[in-house]
Amino acid sequence: MIEKIEHLGIAVKDVEQSKQVFDKLLNSSAYKEEVVDSEGVRTVFYQLGESKVELLEATTEQSAIAKYLEKRKEGIHHIALSVKGIEAEIERLKKEGFEFISDVPKAGADGKKIVFIHPRSANGMLVELCEDI
Amino acid sequence: MIEKIEHLGIAVKDVEQSKQVFDKLLNSSAYKEEVVDSEGVRTVFYQLGESKVELLEATTEQSAIAKYLEKRKEGIHHIALSVKGIEAEIERLKKEGFEFISDVPKAGADGKKIVFIHPRSANGMLVELCEDI
Repeated sequence: MIEKIEHLGIAVKDVEQSKQVFDKLLNSSAYKEEVVDSEGVRTVFYQLGESKVELLEATTEQSAIAKYLEKRKEGIHHIALSVKGIEAEIERLKKEGFEFISDVPKAGADGKKIVFIHPRSANGMLVELCEDI
Repeated sequence: MIEKIEHLGIAVKDVEQSKQVFDKLLNSSAYKEEVVDSEGVRTVFYQLGESKVELLEATTEQSAIAKYLEKRKEGIHHIALSVKGIEAEIERLKKEGFEFISDVPKAGADGKKIVFIHPRSANGMLVELCEDI
């Protein structure tokens, strides 16, 4: 079951610089910073109602964020949906014709199991499904 | 005061086609459709937790959505933040250096006063502030 927008992922070149922008924009402070080596990203989280904003800076050239910023400007990179029963939700969406980048959940930031739907099957949006481990 | 993500605006070529994708993705149905003549858009809304997803199709060539899709693919077009006291929030953000596309709130979809922050001052994101009229 899809519950809510868990977070919006924003691709940034420099997390420290972008924190200054988001501190002012959201009039709050990041509550957490985390490096996710498996994804090659440094992340910073802001709470925003029941959702979060996640700033993502690449820590390696192979990182999806580095590749994204080679082609595009900084901006909204993905939307993450919080789901209950991620395996069943993956099965439901596959039956509906959605393509997954990998359909086996892996460990992401913030203590979650995550999986990504390919933008070509979701109206150009990179969609993450996530669930607390 | 910034309260939550009010909605995510998704630029689409054809709302009817995209509804089929979002019905399946979110496993729900749109609860509202509205044409906003002043913006040149047809909009469709889905509830998603405390936030909404707004699909936007251009109804005129002058529409911001038409211009967006001339240059880019379909995808996340803007993030709308729900605020309390929009005029005071605009003043606060202007003092912090944010540039507004127009700093006078106007009537948008869904019974709201809306105003947009220019992406160049918000890390590449088009940010809408909105408040119930």
